[in-house]
Amino acid sequence: MGCRIMTDMLQPLTGERRELEQRELLCEMLRLFYDKGWVSGTGGGLCARLDDGRLLVAPTGVHKERVQPDDLFLVEPVEGTIVRPPALQSLRPSECTPIFRAVIRARGAGSVVHSHALSAVLAADLADEGALLIHGLEMLKGVRGAASADAHLVPVIVNTPRESELVEQVEAALADPRFEATGAILVSDHGAYIWGIDVWEAKRHTEVYHFLFEAVKARRA
Amino acid sequence: MGCRIMTDMLQPLTGERRELEQRELLCEMLRLFYDKGWVSGTGGGLCARLDDGRLLVAPTGVHKERVQPDDLFLVEPVEGTIVRPPALQSLRPSECTPIFRAVIRARGAGSVVHSHALSAVLAADLADEGALLIHGLEMLKGVRGAASADAHLVPVIVNTPRESELVEQVEAALADPRFEATGAILVSDHGAYIWGIDVWEAKRHTEVYHFLFEAVKARRA
Amino acid sequence: MGCRIMTDMLQPLTGERRELEQRELLCEMLRLFYDKGWVSGTGGGLCARLDDGRLLVAPTGVHKERVQPDDLFLVEPVEGTIVRPPALQSLRPSECTPIFRAVIRARGAGSVVHSHALSAVLAADLADEGALLIHGLEMLKGVRGAASADAHLVPVIVNTPRESELVEQVEAALADPRFEATGAILVSDHGAYIWGIDVWEAKRHTEVYHFLFEAVKARRA
Amino acid sequence: MGCRIMTDMLQPLTGERRELEQRELLCEMLRLFYDKGWVSGTGGGLCARLDDGRLLVAPTGVHKERVQPDDLFLVEPVEGTIVRPPALQSLRPSECTPIFRAVIRARGAGSVVHSHALSAVLAADLADEGALLIHGLEMLKGVRGAASADAHLVPVIVNTPRESELVEQVEAALADPRFEATGAILVSDHGAYIWGIDVWEAKRHTEVYHFLFEAVKARRA
Repeated sequence: MGCRIMTDMLQPLTGERRELEQRELLCEMLRLFYDKGWVSGTGGGLCARLDDGRLLVAPTGVHKERVQPDDLFLVEPVEGTIVRPPALQSLRPSECTPIFRAVIRARGAGSVVHSHALSAVLAADLADEGALLIHGLEMLKGVRGAASADAHLVPVIVNTPRESELVEQVEAALADPRFEATGAILVSDHGAYIWGIDVWEAKRHTEVYHFLFEAVKARRA
Repeated sequence: MGCRIMTDMLQPLTGERRELEQRELLCEMLRLFYDKGWVSGTGGGLCARLDDGRLLVAPTGVHKERVQPDDLFLVEPVEGTIVRPPALQSLRPSECTPIFRAVIRARGAGSVVHSHALSAVLAADLADEGALLIHGLEMLKGVRGAASADAHLVPVIVNTPRESELVEQVEAALADPRFEATGAILVSDHGAYIWGIDVWEAKRHTEVYHFLFEAVKARRA
Repeated sequence: MGCRIMTDMLQPLTGERRELEQRELLCEMLRLFYDKGWVSGTGGGLCARLDDGRLLVAPTGVHKERVQPDDLFLVEPVEGTIVRPPALQSLRPSECTPIFRAVIRARGAGSVVHSHALSAVLAADLADEGALLIHGLEMLKGVRGAASADAHLVPVIVNTPRESELVEQVEAALADPRFEATGAILVSDHGAYIWGIDVWEAKRHTEVYHFLFEAVKARRA
Repeated sequence: MGCRIMTDMLQPLTGERRELEQRELLCEMLRLFYDKGWVSGTGGGLCARLDDGRLLVAPTGVHKERVQPDDLFLVEPVEGTIVRPPALQSLRPSECTPIFRAVIRARGAGSVVHSHALSAVLAADLADEGALLIHGLEMLKGVRGAASADAHLVPVIVNTPRESELVEQVEAALADPRFEATGAILVSDHGAYIWGIDVWEAKRHTEVYHFLFEAVKARRA
């Protein structure tokens, strides 16, 4: 639906209705993120896990604000095989799918957003020893488990020619104890992966981290 | 309603209709402030006083642009006890409620907005001796009682781990004769509290102060 | 209407329908300018001349994006007397009215916009000897009669405590041969007055000059 | 339609319906680009080639976000003669038409956008030996045939008093082997021409290049 304000308001629906609701919600998120400039030029993407563990994944190479509920792929999470493609045969699943699956495996995420925001690129430019330090900002409280006084470290990994080649670095970052508290991974020259336990938390984290990226950049300018 | 342009156009309505109107207006303001980036990532909040003195207060920890009229808390202003919670039991009242009440007590405010805008954070960084000096800007006239030639001082208090711990500093700032003319308090690393005699004046002050924060920052860059 | 794209498409209508059309158009412009941040915090304003020479003037001190067609004042242009006030008695005509009338007298303008944009304030900060020099920008062609190779001078006058006290400086700027080509006057610390032969040209000039103000500022940063 | 997400989804329609669809799509693009600030102040423009090779071209000197499907010119591509003007006789075809035709001739473009964005002007300011170097940005993948590791060169030509005088420089840039990979030409002090094989690719390239212009500027600031 996209009009509910809290995670726990989402009633447990039967599978089919729940899936349709999630498909509509993901399309709404893509429109919202497009308006904010985070998925322009067909860049970026997102996914969400259904109750049975299968993933809804946005198609790649399309204008994200125009994706319709039927355009999403249904993907098996362990092997990444496509359970049900969209009717439109020209669509291909997001190249980020292996990364989405790695984040879900390591963090139990229910939804992962891939941002192509300029603020993420510029924040990644400020990395030191593979990490962006964020501190002294109340908005940190918007990250699950974080407090405003934290020295919050976001991993910054190095961009690769193909998105699927990022998986190894993503897995290493997620396994690194320095980054236990993070809900995001920055990719230099590229953007960010941001996740949450469900679509609503992923939305909150996406807004929070973009605020933090802009704040860190503005303060160091 | 949300479509009237001046404070004094609001007809005195009977309690129930007036309360519904205010609930709808507050939700409209939350959507507007979200679009401007002032309450992103579930941050920020606001309240308004009804004619009988009771407060309507937005819930905390939710996507502010999606708050519905029925989601607001009705709060007794002196003790801060909840007179009527929303039907949705998972909602919690804003952590800012004690601060809202302090501003209402000290200044007779009819509405208080809590902003999480980046411009407020960056303006607070420019504080000197606990105050931000704003001067040489026509927009100062938008603050009740202020003139464009004023040396307008906005208090900047220090952020605390929990929002409720800010009350003491807020009360001290409101009692400080340096800040008699202010309609806002900045909180370092955090945002701002901005108020007015009613929702419309709080909206005007919110727009005016965000303009002033951006202007001061741009001029010192 | 607000949906026609060119000045000369506006059919000559009989007085009453023409006036209603202009009232609706002015309200549409206020909403547009509000969305762009040029008339926030109840600041700014605008007027348009009807075929009989009388002026429609926006009220002052109100949220500009919420002004309705019936809220505009009808003003006699020579003496500035109010021919017909809005039904809503609490409304007051814009304090800019004497300035609007001075621009109309000196330049034959059919519509004048008063902007409170931050970009205008920051551009005015760059004034040298009472003028902002704009050059080397194709967008200059958007100003009636100007070419992209022009050294275009916009007068920058000094802000005064009351808006009506600006008239003398406005008249001097409009009479200054240095500023023959301008379609705008900047007011330091305050904003700008921008005009055109009708509402559509005033809209074009308003967009063009704000682009130019931002460009000049960005290039000198 | 304007709601399809991929190029190849556009069914081959019979000529008349296809033309109407393209007219509506171009108007939608103008509204979108206006909202992003790329065609403000009546600046900018665009065209698209129909299946029979004839061009739909936006009128010049009008508020671009208000152009209606019937306001577009139908133009013969080789000589540039007007096949069918809009009903509204006051409209004139874009001055960019000769440039649009040069790009179509040299690159087989199906749609060309002319942007007046400030980010294009500021990026052109960074030109070195007639070119802007863009590198180290994943968003480069959004340009047909480009890879994120490319040293991507965009030609920057010198502005001329009249737009039609740019044709020679445009042709030289398009013939220059340095610029084989580009999907855009920057014009100093002016803006950019950006193209694609159809309207959807032109839209993608327009978003991608504006991102790249902003990124390059931000990194060099």
